[in-house]
Amino acid sequence: MNINAPRGTQDILPGVSEKWQYVEQQLADLCRRYHYKEIRTPIFEHTELFQRGVGDSTDIVQKEMYTFEDRGGRSITLRPEGTASVVRAFVQNKVYGLPNQPTKYFYTGPMFRYERPQQGRMRQFVQFGIEALGSDDPAIDAEVLSLALNSYKELGLKSLKLVLNSLGDQESREAHRDALIRHFDPHREELCADCQVRLDQNPLRVLDCKKDRGHPAMENAPSILEYLNDYSRDYFEKVKQYLDVMDIEYVVDPNLVRGLDYYTHTAFEIMSEAEGFGAITTLSGGGRYTGLVKEVGGPETSGIGFAMSIERLLMALEAEGVELPIDEGLECFVVALGEDADKAAVKLTNQLRAAGVQVDKDYLGKKMKGQFKSADRLNSKYVLVLGEQELENGVINVKDMATGEQKEISLETIIDYMKEQVSGGE
Amino acid sequence: MNINAPRGTQDILPGVSEKWQYVEQQLADLCRRYHYKEIRTPIFEHTELFQRGVGDSTDIVQKEMYTFEDRGGRSITLRPEGTASVVRAFVQNKVYGLPNQPTKYFYTGPMFRYERPQQGRMRQFVQFGIEALGSDDPAIDAEVLSLALNSYKELGLKSLKLVLNSLGDQESREAHRDALIRHFDPHREELCADCQVRLDQNPLRVLDCKKDRGHPAMENAPSILEYLNDYSRDYFEKVKQYLDVMDIEYVVDPNLVRGLDYYTHTAFEIMSEAEGFGAITTLSGGGRYTGLVKEVGGPETSGIGFAMSIERLLMALEAEGVELPIDEGLECFVVALGEDADKAAVKLTNQLRAAGVQVDKDYLGKKMKGQFKSADRLNSKYVLVLGEQELENGVINVKDMATGEQKEISLETIIDYMKEQVSGGE
Repeated sequence: MNINAPRGTQDILPGVSEKWQYVEQQLADLCRRYHYKEIRTPIFEHTELFQRGVGDSTDIVQKEMYTFEDRGGRSITLRPEGTASVVRAFVQNKVYGLPNQPTKYFYTGPMFRYERPQQGRMRQFVQFGIEALGSDDPAIDAEVLSLALNSYKELGLKSLKLVLNSLGDQESREAHRDALIRHFDPHREELCADCQVRLDQNPLRVLDCKKDRGHPAMENAPSILEYLNDYSRDYFEKVKQYLDVMDIEYVVDPNLVRGLDYYTHTAFEIMSEAEGFGAITTLSGGGRYTGLVKEVGGPETSGIGFAMSIERLLMALEAEGVELPIDEGLECFVVALGEDADKAAVKLTNQLRAAGVQVDKDYLGKKMKGQFKSADRLNSKYVLVLGEQELENGVINVKDMATGEQKEISLETIIDYMKEQVSGGE
Repeated sequence: MNINAPRGTQDILPGVSEKWQYVEQQLADLCRRYHYKEIRTPIFEHTELFQRGVGDSTDIVQKEMYTFEDRGGRSITLRPEGTASVVRAFVQNKVYGLPNQPTKYFYTGPMFRYERPQQGRMRQFVQFGIEALGSDDPAIDAEVLSLALNSYKELGLKSLKLVLNSLGDQESREAHRDALIRHFDPHREELCADCQVRLDQNPLRVLDCKKDRGHPAMENAPSILEYLNDYSRDYFEKVKQYLDVMDIEYVVDPNLVRGLDYYTHTAFEIMSEAEGFGAITTLSGGGRYTGLVKEVGGPETSGIGFAMSIERLLMALEAEGVELPIDEGLECFVVALGEDADKAAVKLTNQLRAAGVQVDKDYLGKKMKGQFKSADRLNSKYVLVLGEQELENGVINVKDMATGEQKEISLETIIDYMKEQVSGGE
């Protein structure tokens, strides 16, 4: 009887897992240089956290969460995204009270959304993201944008577009909201059912409705940028100036909106413009938020962050034909012939590994030819051959598979010799 | 209103997350040298997998699983351990049919058991483990034991004990089982209620009952080692010979049992003997299994593996006072004074990061003194000072915080200069 992995999940096997390791290491090193430090939060949280932190009215909370009761009867949800958990940890651990602010975190890990699986959209997917909490300096918005863009650029992606907008502060948003209602209200009956509700609850969302995209009223809808008050306009100008200073190109799109009330000022998305990348071109998104820390029980603190799906990053690398520098070969394979040689090979293998050399050997009782075949298939750079004769003479035969060159090396010096070979004489 | 992390889970914050990174990197490098490659399986699986693969009668399956229905009405369980998922992936992806056998995997990731939380026992905990599938060579048992032990030794632990046993093959186990029933049956009424059931279902488990530990019949209970048939005895001898060849010390304990029918031949545990480590001294356990691959839908294939909790590894490091080589300092902090200098600082910070240097700056609008204080608290090795005067002269002031030495460096060469400084002239 076969048991398969649940729909919308996947196994990452050797041959592919090396790509994940490489990408995650590069992202961790990027964060090291930007001085963002790793935080790890639990896979599940109390459901209430996401109802408050992601928003009760969102699709995520309404339709896509993995929510269940634990054995103690508490409602638990597999995290659908990272920000709410990071903010919860920031509050629960009273990090806001520590001296070094802002607090700059990065995280990587699985997230869960019950959606219809399609290319680049899994029910379990891995997000990498950052959050900077406790600063209202436009320079940190620019820093987050720089890090977000460099996560792709440093891996070799070229066809990227950074789309930017400002949602303004509370005052600007309210002015814009009123203008949107005034603008769309005469057309209320012509809009889709969802938008009629949105018009009352969150008129900003009307702007990114896929059904009403073609409605004539969309074209001259009031832009948030016209409703920014002085503070918000100045904030946005500064963010753009810092981007200019860093030679970061961007496009301003006043229709780039984010659903929740928490979002203020800077909002952005990074898109792939690679051919054949797929229907959904958004690689990642982020922005500034206010009120979230307070909602979760902390003091008024604003933050900015972004998150990307690693699956989509890997898809973009493939679409652009970027080859990651991954060496899948093996450093050394030990071929042994005869019972005594086999024991000596076990000992030698263990010593070489302890000395830092990557080594494998046969575990299927294969004859010499079969062992050589294994070494070959594993792409081994060196093959060490140990027969009864060599054992008697206290030597081992070393074959360099690239050059075909063979050498007899004494068993006393073989460890140092191999260390030297695989480190490239460093 | 406060929302906390669910009971039995924890946040891993900067200051601690570096230890996790370090330990996981060391374990990944150990696996690289032993030629075990990473596999990543989903966080949840169909519940049936664990019922079959961990065993319906076990405490884990009966009492400790996080099981729930997804929105499609399927029974889903957060993985309580790693082996069942790895074997499922091996079967589903038909890895058994690939040419390079045995298949050697390692994994690291969160596991979930609904237990009463206590020191070193969390409801979400992280396991590192390996599985070698497709070889019956005793040398690979010894390889797994070597890797298991070196995961602790290479990190600096010394007070370790490797406890070893053989459970024999099916024939040996049946002979032992009969002997156990014959031995305990006359005392049936004196044993605890659980053991009376165990005596019929799985008499091996009577041997590690905590309630009946003191019963006189325990002392001279038949040992599995007396019931090993020739093949099993020879197998165990060979494992021990390979351990001797590798200078690995061990203690044989015939009472070391594992509950499930899948387990055969080699079984082991690694214990900490460090003072003050806590009540549960087991760091990790593992062993050989047969029948599991078939149970999950694959061809008859045996395997051997082990798993450890990273939480308990970190506890052991603390108990032995091992200091991990983690540098928490910052490489460089940029102090800027004035609006133009601030823009130049944003640009410079971005360039230094792109060049590989770890840099931070102020984002709270602090005055010079406050910025220096931040640099100090962040343990910055270098402080770069950029005022309007320096900007006009095209220079920047570099202070080496270890020596107190200050230098003026031209803005044109500062990137190269700092690269040189932080790489230690490599």
